[in-house]
Amino acid sequence: MTDLDYFFDPKSIAIIGASDTLRFGYTTTKYLLNSKFKTYPVHLTKTEILGHKSYKNIKDIPDDIELAIILVGNKHVPQAIKDSIEKGVKGIILESAGFAETGLDKHIKLQDEIVEIIKKSKTRVIGPNCVGISNFSNEFTTSEVQFHRVVKGDISIVAQSGVLGNVFIDWGSSQNIGFSKSITLGNKIDVDEVDMLQYLNDDPETKVITVYLEGTKRGKELMKTLKKMKKPVLILKNGRSDIGSRAVKSHTSSIAGDDRIYGAMFKQHPGIFRVDNFYELFNIAHIFSSQTLPKGKNIAVVTGSGSLGILACDEIKRQGLTLASLSEESVQKIKKIIPDWVSIGGTIDLGPSQGTTLIPSLRVLFNDTNVDAILFIFTVPRGPLEEFEGFGEGIQMGFQLLKRLSEKSNKPCVVVSFGSRWVFEFIMNIASKLNIPVVERIKHAVMAFRMMYEYQQSLAFQK
Amino acid sequence: MTDLDYFFDPKSIAIIGASDTLRFGYTTTKYLLNSKFKTYPVHLTKTEILGHKSYKNIKDIPDDIELAIILVGNKHVPQAIKDSIEKGVKGIILESAGFAETGLDKHIKLQDEIVEIIKKSKTRVIGPNCVGISNFSNEFTTSEVQFHRVVKGDISIVAQSGVLGNVFIDWGSSQNIGFSKSITLGNKIDVDEVDMLQYLNDDPETKVITVYLEGTKRGKELMKTLKKMKKPVLILKNGRSDIGSRAVKSHTSSIAGDDRIYGAMFKQHPGIFRVDNFYELFNIAHIFSSQTLPKGKNIAVVTGSGSLGILACDEIKRQGLTLASLSEESVQKIKKIIPDWVSIGGTIDLGPSQGTTLIPSLRVLFNDTNVDAILFIFTVPRGPLEEFEGFGEGIQMGFQLLKRLSEKSNKPCVVVSFGSRWVFEFIMNIASKLNIPVVERIKHAVMAFRMMYEYQQSLAFQK
Repeated sequence: MTDLDYFFDPKSIAIIGASDTLRFGYTTTKYLLNSKFKTYPVHLTKTEILGHKSYKNIKDIPDDIELAIILVGNKHVPQAIKDSIEKGVKGIILESAGFAETGLDKHIKLQDEIVEIIKKSKTRVIGPNCVGISNFSNEFTTSEVQFHRVVKGDISIVAQSGVLGNVFIDWGSSQNIGFSKSITLGNKIDVDEVDMLQYLNDDPETKVITVYLEGTKRGKELMKTLKKMKKPVLILKNGRSDIGSRAVKSHTSSIAGDDRIYGAMFKQHPGIFRVDNFYELFNIAHIFSSQTLPKGKNIAVVTGSGSLGILACDEIKRQGLTLASLSEESVQKIKKIIPDWVSIGGTIDLGPSQGTTLIPSLRVLFNDTNVDAILFIFTVPRGPLEEFEGFGEGIQMGFQLLKRLSEKSNKPCVVVSFGSRWVFEFIMNIASKLNIPVVERIKHAVMAFRMMYEYQQSLAFQK
Repeated sequence: MTDLDYFFDPKSIAIIGASDTLRFGYTTTKYLLNSKFKTYPVHLTKTEILGHKSYKNIKDIPDDIELAIILVGNKHVPQAIKDSIEKGVKGIILESAGFAETGLDKHIKLQDEIVEIIKKSKTRVIGPNCVGISNFSNEFTTSEVQFHRVVKGDISIVAQSGVLGNVFIDWGSSQNIGFSKSITLGNKIDVDEVDMLQYLNDDPETKVITVYLEGTKRGKELMKTLKKMKKPVLILKNGRSDIGSRAVKSHTSSIAGDDRIYGAMFKQHPGIFRVDNFYELFNIAHIFSSQTLPKGKNIAVVTGSGSLGILACDEIKRQGLTLASLSEESVQKIKKIIPDWVSIGGTIDLGPSQGTTLIPSLRVLFNDTNVDAILFIFTVPRGPLEEFEGFGEGIQMGFQLLKRLSEKSNKPCVVVSFGSRWVFEFIMNIASKLNIPVVERIKHAVMAFRMMYEYQQSLAFQK
């Protein structure tokens, strides 16, 4: 196993191809030069970059360099790598594109050339064709992450694609999903998902790992590594076999075959879960990271809308979970709170007077030993939330109770919010302070409960 | 066929159970009393409601009343209905709950009692257990819709559930989805989805109809009506047979059986499309209502991210559509715009310099006769959008061109935006002025293209 800390907390950095104009790399250059990280710009012609002395070559820097970030045009990359190795860097993040991903012969050859160069060294390389690393705890990044807008947490990301280095972190943060580390791997001429899974498995700041995979060159090692993971891993894998070859003609049966092999590989290991899209990936990771594991598969539903409660029942069934069957004592208590309530298992329709029925209903459900997890469907429209004083306060009290009961009873809870973005943010702002996850889809909440239950089962089995 | 205009544009209104305190009905009372609609409050004890003279009984009002809105407690409903009928109202919107939906014998009997009363009259009744009607063009509503926040459009909603009367309209409006009319039907003791489908089929303000159905009591009439529809109808139907009975024990095979019958019914009629959740329902309706129908099933993809482009290809395949195969002329033109571009059918990865590649790429795609529809995947993060002057302007120009080319070539176009909510709203604000739909899911865009293509095929077949 390799210690790759220098990629996440480098003692000194050189940016080869540092940019002070509005092109690729400008944001990274500007951010790092003005950060606490000791950073040296390297540029062929400029002697100064954004007020910092610039060097013609990395070898001219009068200091040890631990990490080189390479941003130069593809044809300059082999020399930049040679120079970096000679300088004695431990790691290189090679962001430049224009290699095997284009599918053009000349670019494939260029990539082969750099593979040959690094083979002879001990220097580790991430890339090419990537946006590198972000570490949310020390705020080191080679990507365009805006840390003042990002939510810090314990979800880490391993991805081939650059879009996960910023666009989906932006999205996650606007949903209050907190991240720890993100790694985009690009064409993977050296460091790959196996290395990073091993690294994150031992990373104390990572609790849940999310992976976006387009293919692996080390199937056996990936299988072995997945088997050893001590943390839940959520994987999104698309239908293609390898991003290295972009000359995809169509979705042929051979690719579908590949996909079945991946599917089988993921299924062999409890704790490895496959999802279908980016929203599932991060919402489920969010629930995994913030909630305790359910001890059983009995889900109770508290809902402001009967129809959405029914759709939740459909989803619980679809995921192979069970609608909780409340104890007779709970049924009697709920009937006192909501006189018109009719027992349909564990679904409590709060009715029009949610303000008075929510809190006592939650007490009953969390205390019922037949309930393992609680799904709360929030459906109050913007109008009354804005108009009626005390409504917001009442909801805040409800959520505080939710948190206390969830901790005391050691049962997970997820809120699904329906309505305008304003309502979603209203609820998210309350819930985020209590670390209660809020999602927009019933499906994501119930899928998370299913996976968490399976994970809990696999842990119990290992004991 | 019945003319139900008095439900949507009543000449005079009585609110029985008008409320000037913060309880159910308060918002409706306050809104209608201060609106252009001639409205009279009716209350058993109060002589004045929110500054308006109140009447003890609807029969005391010295004016003809076309529509009665009933908000009183369930046990007062039979008398309120009798009085309304005696007054000679054409329609009643019965919002009160506490009838068959609770599953309790006494409530089922109460509902039967009102069914008997209305049977003998010509008065039509919507409800009970609903939030009634909203008409977005004249701003009449019996629900909690806030018209100043709502986007007006030509999508209408027929739903059993009240949650569609406000919560999902809130949501739709925050996604720039425009509505025409919404009807929540509740327990459907009289007016049902068949009546409303017939009404909306002839409504000049409705272009696309969305339906949330939990069950029908008039299967044959529904089939006949669906067959006659001149507009696309999107249906969300959950697994349950009838909302009237809430004593659902579990999802039994008999209910699954029902669901198969509904599925088969919907499939028999081209122009009727079944969806799986509320987000699909409204996003697809939005695309249907704003875009021209594709003439073929060849979809071109313009994307800022290779990975998302690949996921789009997966989805195009999954929906039974085809990735457009560009003409040789187009291929040569694209290669001049993006030198490293490699032909993988109709997917154009704009690369890092989207600012210069987007506009010429769009020109090529819209002009290619092998392309029937365009999917544009937008993935610029917030940072550069905010920081670089002229970026927003460039995007605006791109979208204007998109609109012009789409109209000129008569090909539909959908934008999928990935990233933070800020980015989504940035793009939506530009696109909404041009009536270009922006959605968050590749799946919704591609499903819409598939349904629109099928709809176009069925229209062509009828000619």
